[in-house]
Amino acid sequence: MKGTLVLIPTALGSAPEALEVVSPSVREEARRLSGLIAESRKGATVFFKQAGLPPTSPPRAVRLLNEHTRPAELEKLLAPVLAGESWGLVSDGGSPAVADPGAELVLLAHRHGVRVRPLAGPSSPVLALMASGLGGQRFAFHGYLPRDTASRRRTLKDLESSAARHIRTEIWMETPYRNMAVFEDALAALEDNTFLSVASDLTLPTEDIQTRRVSEWKSAARPDLKNRPTIFLLGILKG
Amino acid sequence: MKGTLVLIPTALGSAPEALEVVSPSVREEARRLSGLIAESRKGATVFFKQAGLPPTSPPRAVRLLNEHTRPAELEKLLAPVLAGESWGLVSDGGSPAVADPGAELVLLAHRHGVRVRPLAGPSSPVLALMASGLGGQRFAFHGYLPRDTASRRRTLKDLESSAARHIRTEIWMETPYRNMAVFEDALAALEDNTFLSVASDLTLPTEDIQTRRVSEWKSAARPDLKNRPTIFLLGILKG
Repeated sequence: MKGTLVLIPTALGSAPEALEVVSPSVREEARRLSGLIAESRKGATVFFKQAGLPPTSPPRAVRLLNEHTRPAELEKLLAPVLAGESWGLVSDGGSPAVADPGAELVLLAHRHGVRVRPLAGPSSPVLALMASGLGGQRFAFHGYLPRDTASRRRTLKDLESSAARHIRTEIWMETPYRNMAVFEDALAALEDNTFLSVASDLTLPTEDIQTRRVSEWKSAARPDLKNRPTIFLLGILKG
Repeated sequence: MKGTLVLIPTALGSAPEALEVVSPSVREEARRLSGLIAESRKGATVFFKQAGLPPTSPPRAVRLLNEHTRPAELEKLLAPVLAGESWGLVSDGGSPAVADPGAELVLLAHRHGVRVRPLAGPSSPVLALMASGLGGQRFAFHGYLPRDTASRRRTLKDLESSAARHIRTEIWMETPYRNMAVFEDALAALEDNTFLSVASDLTLPTEDIQTRRVSEWKSAARPDLKNRPTIFLLGILKG
């Protein structure tokens, strides 16, 4: 009988408060795994911490899956699961395969008829969407925007049109050291009436979530986003 | 000092297995609340169960927020929070304000400078996305598709084009008794090479998640989706 590939969300940081978001089912599941596939050693460490397991305890086998993994290696990673073991998949924080690596391995599991079991936990785009107040009946997550200012501003204008046309919330993220540049581009590119939400340090003691119209942001104090993991959202609302 | 509006995910069902997905921080937070704003009595019941609280214990005050709530009532719902109390917001299952009511109240909280705190937990579109293997670097959630077959098939074709153009996973849901009709429309409307994923009864003992190409679905046994909460996803992948 084939094993199960268990998709395990990890805390968005290793502060005690961040680790509290993990449910008992995640902890319990962790103790039953034969091995762990992690985005990096860092992801594996958070997994062991949140599961309350010393890093030398089972699952002792830790393999890496990230942007350096060649497609041919995926079959090898899945082999123990095909042989009947249950393995966990974790990213460096949040839900694996959502804005993080892992999807190729999950698809391969489906191709082989392996059971895939997703566990519930933190996902920063979703936490930001809930907390933005911008509406989650329809939404789109775009990952990273282009790096150069001109293309980024064009993309932001496109997202604004898309938000109005589809009546949905548009979500993106940025490498933390570029957060302030993206924020300034948004103020420059977007209409005054558009709502812009920024959600930093989600689930951490320093969590900060603010939603304002672009016109209000222009006269408010700048939020401190530098080097803090941040999700950005925009929405067009009546009234 | 103003209170906090705490956004609390609830289990996707009241089976013991479903309730296990709730983290200690959610349980702890539940005990500190002065009141609860729920989508319905059902949502409130799941909240009390998952928090391990008898329904007669604090938070005793339960108010409803759903499609019958008039905009003018939102200020009244928020009044105790403005007066310094912390209240929870829950939907009937999953994360409030994500494919569920609540966003208007959250936005009003931001307008009043009230702290909004999202807790991590189950969200069926996200669990389905993780488990689909279709890729979560970019994705869009569209809520419900049109009800009549012709418009629904046109919309499915549009989603397919959009998935190819943006290299993203397109996600939607349906009223459970119409699931099979939507599934058949997807097989009829989509290209053979497109991947279609169906995720039913997420986090429940009867959970079933399958991802196949449309051509493979056509020759496979039909999944049993009737009257089971199901998330649908489509993606176009190379290879």
